[in-house]
Amino acid sequence: MKPEAPDVAGALAARRVGIDTYRENVVFLRRDCPLVRAEGFVALSKVEVRAAGRSILAVLNVVDDPRLLGECELGLSEQAFALLGIGEGEPVRVTHAEPPPSLAALKRKIAGHRLSRDELAAIVRDIAGRRYSKIELAAFVVATNQFELDRDEVLHLTAAMAAAGRRLDWRALDPAALVVDKHCIGGIPGNRTSMIVVPIVAVHAQRCGMLMPKTSSRAITSPAGTADTMACLAAVELPFERMQAIVREQRACLAWGGRAQLSPADDVLISVSRPLSLDSPGQMVASILSKKIAAGSSHLVLDIPLGPTAKVRDMASAQRLKKLFEYVAQRLGLALDAVITDGRQPIGRGIGPALEARDVMQVLHGDAAAPQDLREKALRLAGRVLEFDPAVRGGDGVKLATEILDSGRALAKMRAIVDAQGARAFDWRAPPLGRLSHVVEAPADGTVIGIDCERLARIARLAGAPQTPGAGVDLLRKLGEAVVRGEPLYRIHAGSAAELQFAREVAERASGFTIGDADNLPAPAGEF
Amino acid sequence: MKPEAPDVAGALAARRVGIDTYRENVVFLRRDCPLVRAEGFVALSKVEVRAAGRSILAVLNVVDDPRLLGECELGLSEQAFALLGIGEGEPVRVTHAEPPPSLAALKRKIAGHRLSRDELAAIVRDIAGRRYSKIELAAFVVATNQFELDRDEVLHLTAAMAAAGRRLDWRALDPAALVVDKHCIGGIPGNRTSMIVVPIVAVHAQRCGMLMPKTSSRAITSPAGTADTMACLAAVELPFERMQAIVREQRACLAWGGRAQLSPADDVLISVSRPLSLDSPGQMVASILSKKIAAGSSHLVLDIPLGPTAKVRDMASAQRLKKLFEYVAQRLGLALDAVITDGRQPIGRGIGPALEARDVMQVLHGDAAAPQDLREKALRLAGRVLEFDPAVRGGDGVKLATEILDSGRALAKMRAIVDAQGARAFDWRAPPLGRLSHVVEAPADGTVIGIDCERLARIARLAGAPQTPGAGVDLLRKLGEAVVRGEPLYRIHAGSAAELQFAREVAERASGFTIGDADNLPAPAGEF
Repeated sequence: MKPEAPDVAGALAARRVGIDTYRENVVFLRRDCPLVRAEGFVALSKVEVRAAGRSILAVLNVVDDPRLLGECELGLSEQAFALLGIGEGEPVRVTHAEPPPSLAALKRKIAGHRLSRDELAAIVRDIAGRRYSKIELAAFVVATNQFELDRDEVLHLTAAMAAAGRRLDWRALDPAALVVDKHCIGGIPGNRTSMIVVPIVAVHAQRCGMLMPKTSSRAITSPAGTADTMACLAAVELPFERMQAIVREQRACLAWGGRAQLSPADDVLISVSRPLSLDSPGQMVASILSKKIAAGSSHLVLDIPLGPTAKVRDMASAQRLKKLFEYVAQRLGLALDAVITDGRQPIGRGIGPALEARDVMQVLHGDAAAPQDLREKALRLAGRVLEFDPAVRGGDGVKLATEILDSGRALAKMRAIVDAQGARAFDWRAPPLGRLSHVVEAPADGTVIGIDCERLARIARLAGAPQTPGAGVDLLRKLGEAVVRGEPLYRIHAGSAAELQFAREVAERASGFTIGDADNLPAPAGEF
Repeated sequence: MKPEAPDVAGALAARRVGIDTYRENVVFLRRDCPLVRAEGFVALSKVEVRAAGRSILAVLNVVDDPRLLGECELGLSEQAFALLGIGEGEPVRVTHAEPPPSLAALKRKIAGHRLSRDELAAIVRDIAGRRYSKIELAAFVVATNQFELDRDEVLHLTAAMAAAGRRLDWRALDPAALVVDKHCIGGIPGNRTSMIVVPIVAVHAQRCGMLMPKTSSRAITSPAGTADTMACLAAVELPFERMQAIVREQRACLAWGGRAQLSPADDVLISVSRPLSLDSPGQMVASILSKKIAAGSSHLVLDIPLGPTAKVRDMASAQRLKKLFEYVAQRLGLALDAVITDGRQPIGRGIGPALEARDVMQVLHGDAAAPQDLREKALRLAGRVLEFDPAVRGGDGVKLATEILDSGRALAKMRAIVDAQGARAFDWRAPPLGRLSHVVEAPADGTVIGIDCERLARIARLAGAPQTPGAGVDLLRKLGEAVVRGEPLYRIHAGSAAELQFAREVAERASGFTIGDADNLPAPAGEF
């Protein structure tokens, strides 16, 4: 480690090496390259590569095979080559990477100290700039887990994360508009309410100063994100200029947010916290609110599901989390309406992109088979969003949302949004489901008194969701319904025999359904 | 993630790819390989590679360039190829790696729970088996940092780590022998006492039932480990059978312990904890004692230096640490004599392998220029080790050690050990120092009242130690000595102009020496 090393490296010729290393920049140098000895590089050294004014950090792999690389060549992985943006053979310089400037602050956090606004900002800058190694990222995520961040630290972390990337600005469309949004903290399979809320709100927004430019994520550890589900119906990867044009016309959109570089530090942190299943209150608040602020939202309805297998499992935790969201949102000028909802079971029937898109279209079409719980929840959330409009009286939102949905105007608006984004063929009456399926049956007579959200999400993922859009789980029974032994509980859809087998084996070990006495049905705890 | 996936992978042909990825196994697959699609592999997937009964875990890189690899070939990095131990073209099978079985226990620790003996054993098995990703390793190290491990957890962790690798057994040499050892917790540059203690003890051991088969580490973040310094005089990479033969003859050896696979989980953990500068009491105890137990030691003298820039900075912490060592050692059947010593400054004059070897040889030769502090400390520690012999009266150890040293018998024994291990040319009167040097001078008149151990270690490392054995720092003044402005404080030796420049720049920013009033000289706090 030569942290204060001056640049003593001679220039090498860049060479693109066709190796995909995902989010990690890797560069290759031959062991007999004079620079390797002069600089004391070893395999896995962290290096800085500079060319034509640009610079990237990368991990070094040392090459022993002279056929792979010339002696004075620097090989760059696909990612590194693309980020550096140079041509083959152009000169590049390589030096030891300096340690990230915020390392002292990270060590203070590990030692249990409270961090200042400046320290958190420095950490976020280094994370967004990809100057942290995976070890340092994991250390930050674990050290800030649980009760290690007080509410002002969460505030400063959120503000720094929102500031670290791009910030969408909708004022060019309508300088006075409320930019509204709706978000769920996650953990409940199905629950695809955004695709119903957005067209309802967009209908109303035509008549008032409201915009709902919804950006969503793809699934990371869940069987489907809103972006995955919407992608069954329309293109979702839209450049900002396209999004702007669509929102100008339709007052809303349903796009994937990953392209916009919103809160890039959040993406980096998620890549480490999810494999560890870490989702502490502070990290959740910073993650969600930094993305919303970066997306230009001014008003947000937040869905906090509460249930025995949801992310939040008791009312006291739900209230604490709600207050933390409220504190940070208020300080950052975001109007927040946080709602604790019934999270005892999946919402709707489908779990997986195509199955969830079918549920959504059934609701928008007013189809007799539409899942009522999904319809109800979407209407209530839409009502809350509509009530951000000063002209809508408190309590009138649900009624207004119901009128818009039942009139068919929400469906028409959804079609207009889908066409504007680029429609894809999708027949909701005969959705393109995985061609292999397996039915899981009730092991006994009784009432469904428990549906494990985590277990069903896992089974849907093993079946191939979201990579295979038609894969997943179709629930045939919900909480409180009576079943007799041998009756189907749910159907697993998969695209390949191997995936069906994975999912089946796990379902056979534990189906995720509890059949018991109707008296033991847990009562709903949320507002709706 | 398909944790419960059966093996559906067809066989691929192994191909050695000449890329050095250090401790990380990397394998390469072409993007158009049918297996990549069938298994849903993406770049950085964790995979298990099996061939001829052996199996390794590796990180996948996806190859886009068809020149690098055939469609049905699996490329293996140097490490992966060596570990799998197969020939080019032999069939290998690749599947998704199962998540490490102890992941639930790790998550419990992150959430702040106390872990059971079985949980800690499961974690250590996974770490030693290299089933943890860097993210999971960092999470474990941070979660167990600070006050998160109680003393029974430290005990179970130590026992599991000692059990996870090889355990050296010296009973074949002498079933009744005390297997003695001496260890320092580190942090004090110079301090190369082992190379003096071992020959002294070995002389005495000829006459009593004692063995001192010393295994030492190479430097990780320090400018020299005992193995690096001993390597100036003799070969240190000895197979166990060689070590055994030498110890049978000489009653002692001074070998590198890295080859023996002692507590491999410790090596893995260190690779993550050191870059984060984490060295919590629990981790330190588990690291040191697991290695000693695995090395077959029955009796250990432990040196805990105390000083303002040492690892332990106040007496209360030193006492707590000492008691934790004592508790764990006692429960694991290791006789421990822990000594808190004066750690206010480096011990001896040299910092760096060749400079420290010179100091050691000066002491063994009884040279007039020998650093007295190194001689004193080595004699006191040797005395403590000798007192493990029931025939040596308490308090007589130092006198006995001094007689052995001053008689020249320790030097003769050192020569015998060096010859047995394989002598290397080293003239202690004219050691092979880095040919470039720079003198750092006193900025003012006064007394040396502070020498910063961390700063001088850093300067010695920047100068090239330990990679360049002749590089480092030669101290010309020590605590309490009077200096006048412009007088030399120390000399930096380096092997290259660039390294001399790095070290010089840092020394110019802060030399590590404090010159002041003699009244402000801190008093020594340790036993010696």
